[in-house]
Amino acid sequence: MKEKLVIIGGVAAGMSAAAKANRVNSDLDIHVYTDDEYISYAGCGLPYFIGDRIDSERKLLARSVEQFAHQNIHVHTRHRVERIVPDQGRLQVQNLIGPSQREVPFDRLIVSTGARPSLPAVDGLHLPGVFTLRTIQDSLTIRQYFMQEQPREAVIIGGGYIGLEMVENLLEYDCRVTVIEQAGQIVPNMDPDMAAILRQYLESRGVVLVTGEHITGLSGDRRVREVITNQGTYPADFVLLAVGVRPNSELAEPAGIQLGTGGAIRVNSRMETSIPGIYACGDCATAYHLVSRQEVFIPMGTTANKQGKVAGENAAGGRAAFKGVLGTGIAQVMDMEISRTGLTEKECQQLGIDCLSRTIKAKTAAGYWPTAADIHLKVVVDKTQRVVGAQIVGFAGAAKRIDILATAITLGATVGDLVDMDLAYSPPFSPVWDPVLIALNQF
Amino acid sequence: MKEKLVIIGGVAAGMSAAAKANRVNSDLDIHVYTDDEYISYAGCGLPYFIGDRIDSERKLLARSVEQFAHQNIHVHTRHRVERIVPDQGRLQVQNLIGPSQREVPFDRLIVSTGARPSLPAVDGLHLPGVFTLRTIQDSLTIRQYFMQEQPREAVIIGGGYIGLEMVENLLEYDCRVTVIEQAGQIVPNMDPDMAAILRQYLESRGVVLVTGEHITGLSGDRRVREVITNQGTYPADFVLLAVGVRPNSELAEPAGIQLGTGGAIRVNSRMETSIPGIYACGDCATAYHLVSRQEVFIPMGTTANKQGKVAGENAAGGRAAFKGVLGTGIAQVMDMEISRTGLTEKECQQLGIDCLSRTIKAKTAAGYWPTAADIHLKVVVDKTQRVVGAQIVGFAGAAKRIDILATAITLGATVGDLVDMDLAYSPPFSPVWDPVLIALNQF
Repeated sequence: MKEKLVIIGGVAAGMSAAAKANRVNSDLDIHVYTDDEYISYAGCGLPYFIGDRIDSERKLLARSVEQFAHQNIHVHTRHRVERIVPDQGRLQVQNLIGPSQREVPFDRLIVSTGARPSLPAVDGLHLPGVFTLRTIQDSLTIRQYFMQEQPREAVIIGGGYIGLEMVENLLEYDCRVTVIEQAGQIVPNMDPDMAAILRQYLESRGVVLVTGEHITGLSGDRRVREVITNQGTYPADFVLLAVGVRPNSELAEPAGIQLGTGGAIRVNSRMETSIPGIYACGDCATAYHLVSRQEVFIPMGTTANKQGKVAGENAAGGRAAFKGVLGTGIAQVMDMEISRTGLTEKECQQLGIDCLSRTIKAKTAAGYWPTAADIHLKVVVDKTQRVVGAQIVGFAGAAKRIDILATAITLGATVGDLVDMDLAYSPPFSPVWDPVLIALNQF
Repeated sequence: MKEKLVIIGGVAAGMSAAAKANRVNSDLDIHVYTDDEYISYAGCGLPYFIGDRIDSERKLLARSVEQFAHQNIHVHTRHRVERIVPDQGRLQVQNLIGPSQREVPFDRLIVSTGARPSLPAVDGLHLPGVFTLRTIQDSLTIRQYFMQEQPREAVIIGGGYIGLEMVENLLEYDCRVTVIEQAGQIVPNMDPDMAAILRQYLESRGVVLVTGEHITGLSGDRRVREVITNQGTYPADFVLLAVGVRPNSELAEPAGIQLGTGGAIRVNSRMETSIPGIYACGDCATAYHLVSRQEVFIPMGTTANKQGKVAGENAAGGRAAFKGVLGTGIAQVMDMEISRTGLTEKECQQLGIDCLSRTIKAKTAAGYWPTAADIHLKVVVDKTQRVVGAQIVGFAGAAKRIDILATAITLGATVGDLVDMDLAYSPPFSPVWDPVLIALNQF
């Protein structure tokens, strides 16, 4: 009889794992269970579907259940796994569209249950007009609300990537947008000096940014009317809660699978959990940070795909490893671009790493090029001049340069290794000294 | 008395050297001699000044003689150095706007005489309408010719970066553009498969590309009328000769300064020539190739700036070194972008390096992103899987990704070091697997 691989969760990590496992061992009997009706969707595109930059949710679906079926990967949507019984090698599964509950045996198991939005512990979360954005269904519901209710005062709780990406997409609906962030700055995962540049730009574009205040309640009647914080109240007829996510590790813990940082499922570089033969990957799992050398919980679509691939290969009998993450992130915020990789100065301080930083302002192209735009680039090095982090804030063409520094950090480079690198130059693409080189030459 | 540093040549390398030398040792008496009337100009911008993307040649001038004078750097324009006498530490200098010839003593000398366009050995080069493009004056003369003569048949001899960059700029004048390249492909410094993608695009845009033919003559009367090749004739009322450049090393050789590859002045990593105390840098000098480990002549604005900085520092008593080049190049060709770094497959074969390559076609952004564009990426590795080169052909957002690979090659990375790198992803910037990772995962 065929060996049976069961995967719980059908988005980035789970479907990557399924596809890879099938490529490595086509004799496996692969089954994916998910409580969602959508699988294999691009969650990072959801803000832009709301803002109509992407005109159909169908475009966000990478592959269908039928397409996977052709590869002999059996996807069971609307099936919720309610219990993992490792020592008996079986799951308890509830069919959400019928009454049946059944036992599903497995030989190998991959847990890729993802994460869900964190919710503030306040009253009023149930009010119409209060949303989170995580699934295709969430985005459809938000779109429908905007069509029907035409809100005029949108409040985003949380000034991280998703909150900020939503700004321009909500402005598409001609409403006033207010962002409330409890930290002292927007984009709390960047250093304050870099975040301040973005703040100034967003304020110049009419976005209201409130920092250092946390939500204490939501009030309303037929629908939400007000966001209440520790310092004031803000009118609101639409509220998006975007204060981060929590790993869906509730299935794992009672099964005796060890959890780690942030309550995520602890995995080693092979994506194996504390129970041999059970793997975890994606937004429900931990990762290893290549610079801090610590276990971290930094859920990202890219990491989910990579971890899924490794989990799938190993569950299929292969021997793959995932080296780790740098916490690289990038976002378009109206016309501005922000990105980061490695550690910020603030994070170095928290970790007790002696560091030094330099920040430059330059242009994305030759100064005389008509579309040359501002780029602010901060590089952080440790006391041996090894590059440990970088951050970029700028306009078109700025932020993706972070990859140069991500590559350098991955390879353990020092400033000296990098200062005279032969980076590509021609007037439309760069000044003769690329901003990355300008920054490195400040040390 | 102050020590006297004399620099011959006042463009990228020379003026970088002057500025750096002055920062390192402000007691130096620094003099720059150049036969040109313009200094410190951005030669790479000239094609775009002709095409009016840059509306004034003044924008291409980084700094003026007066600005340098404020830093105590004395620039003597329209002065041609005619002879270097190393053992007597003096130069013979001709003032081009007056009758005077004089002796200029030096304690340290930097030769940054640049390069000049190579010319084919054919008749008719003197005809009106036949141009090269190297200096600000060249670009002014070409613009004037287009205004007065309104040519309709432009022929570019040479299908390298400059020839191809000129295509779109000449199309601005509503003329038909033909490119004649003697090699079997356009962009001869890329592999044929990559060049073919660009060729197909340019032909679809109506550009006539002739490869495998070399010019044997130019004919005409009042102005040029025809380009004659070994295989045919092409009507032409404007001809640009863009078949590469030759180092201006004619001053160095009779002074006993050793020449190297391509007739360029041989320098070590400190930019010192075979005569101690005499430095050379920029387009007149050789460079060390970090992958082939050979001396090369690959004149580039970026390298000129870096070498100039090192020569300036060392001539001022410092101790700097320039590690070397990767032959990185990038160009915008109409709406297409091309770039390369390290070695091509063809170059590996010429050098006897066993290599393996993979080429992928992907998108510059998430597949569902409205402006996602094609990117073709080729990665070349040696038999130990060390990355030795890469090439990109694509549309907006494609080519500058070459820097990720330039960084990896600089640091000696293997495919295994790079395949799971944490590169930046968000729908406007990249697919969830960046094209660089997609390509690396093919090995």
